[in-house]
Amino acid sequence: MRIGILGTGVVGKTLGAKLAKLGHEVRIGSRSAGGETARAWVKSAGGGSTEGTFAEASAHAELVFNCTPGMVSLEALKAAGSRNLEGKTLIDVSNPLDSSKGMPPTLSVCNTDSVGEQIQRAFPTAKVVKSLNTVTVAVMVDPSLIPGVHTMFVSGNDAKATAQVIDLLKTGFGWKEVMDLGDITAARAQEMILPLWLRLYTKLKTPNVNIRVAF
Amino acid sequence: MRIGILGTGVVGKTLGAKLAKLGHEVRIGSRSAGGETARAWVKSAGGGSTEGTFAEASAHAELVFNCTPGMVSLEALKAAGSRNLEGKTLIDVSNPLDSSKGMPPTLSVCNTDSVGEQIQRAFPTAKVVKSLNTVTVAVMVDPSLIPGVHTMFVSGNDAKATAQVIDLLKTGFGWKEVMDLGDITAARAQEMILPLWLRLYTKLKTPNVNIRVAF
Repeated sequence: MRIGILGTGVVGKTLGAKLAKLGHEVRIGSRSAGGETARAWVKSAGGGSTEGTFAEASAHAELVFNCTPGMVSLEALKAAGSRNLEGKTLIDVSNPLDSSKGMPPTLSVCNTDSVGEQIQRAFPTAKVVKSLNTVTVAVMVDPSLIPGVHTMFVSGNDAKATAQVIDLLKTGFGWKEVMDLGDITAARAQEMILPLWLRLYTKLKTPNVNIRVAF
Repeated sequence: MRIGILGTGVVGKTLGAKLAKLGHEVRIGSRSAGGETARAWVKSAGGGSTEGTFAEASAHAELVFNCTPGMVSLEALKAAGSRNLEGKTLIDVSNPLDSSKGMPPTLSVCNTDSVGEQIQRAFPTAKVVKSLNTVTVAVMVDPSLIPGVHTMFVSGNDAKATAQVIDLLKTGFGWKEVMDLGDITAARAQEMILPLWLRLYTKLKTPNVNIRVAF
């Protein structure tokens, strides 16, 4: 599959590398093409990996990952361009973490809205699926870093897109338990887990922490 | 132990009944004394159980449970009276659920503050411990309703009060895994789990749902 990764931070680079390893044709996108980080990533990811602008990465793709920070995601996706996202599954991995008022970060949007919903409203023809935002990136692509079964959540308005993401999470990344929370308004619940995650990270002194739903 | 329960809703009545069963001397408190609900509860709880105003229930107690809805908790505790809470462990079970704009409810405070913190600020000599707000009341007093191990959180500024609550949760209510998240600002994380809980409740069609921390 042709996959576009928006964002050349550690999340974008790690997800992109894993997807390239799985045999996908990955193009990583940034504000401007040809940056040092992106070129180094292409070299290390190998295969048919390429890099370009947000728009070029999205135009290339059948499936797009938003790996930009939540507070700038709308801006990055505007640069990607509505037409380049049309009809495509757009996996939103972002969290609206705001560290401008000190640590721990707070959320720049929550409770009555979420980044996932903001993106879906701004790009109504994209099929936004919120997922992966509740774990550190190493765990996203290798859930076995945490012993036992633990839960990954997905939400989105398009059942086919959600099913496609669940399949990728399970067969591609090795997730054993993926729970579909419903429409994209569930992104509020997913993003509001972050304060708990940050507390657990501090307390347990490892980023390899997640939750399992018990019932 | 002499325990005061503030609130005669299903949470207060169930916690009070369990604590009476454990041999504690429980007084349940409401806006006004002698109400039908409170009198019926005293009859069914038996033992040395009594009822009264918020102030009478708090004055009676060594340990106080706030079981009023989060949006009216400050008001209820003001009626209880600062002097009646002084130096006492005050377990805050509340959630700031606001259903005034429809379902699912949103939180009336979150992200940069919490009911737990509001209470601690308003009653600085009380030892506020946030706990139990992340599960339905039947599970609070009988965690075995959910199979396997799952996690209860506590937070608070006073280490002795937190330890006292952890002991009650474990030896009184049967919790196997209680995790101390730190000072009372962690109440934000605990209260912000509610949107996820509400989603899971809807999806799984049972209120007997909780999370387990995996790491």
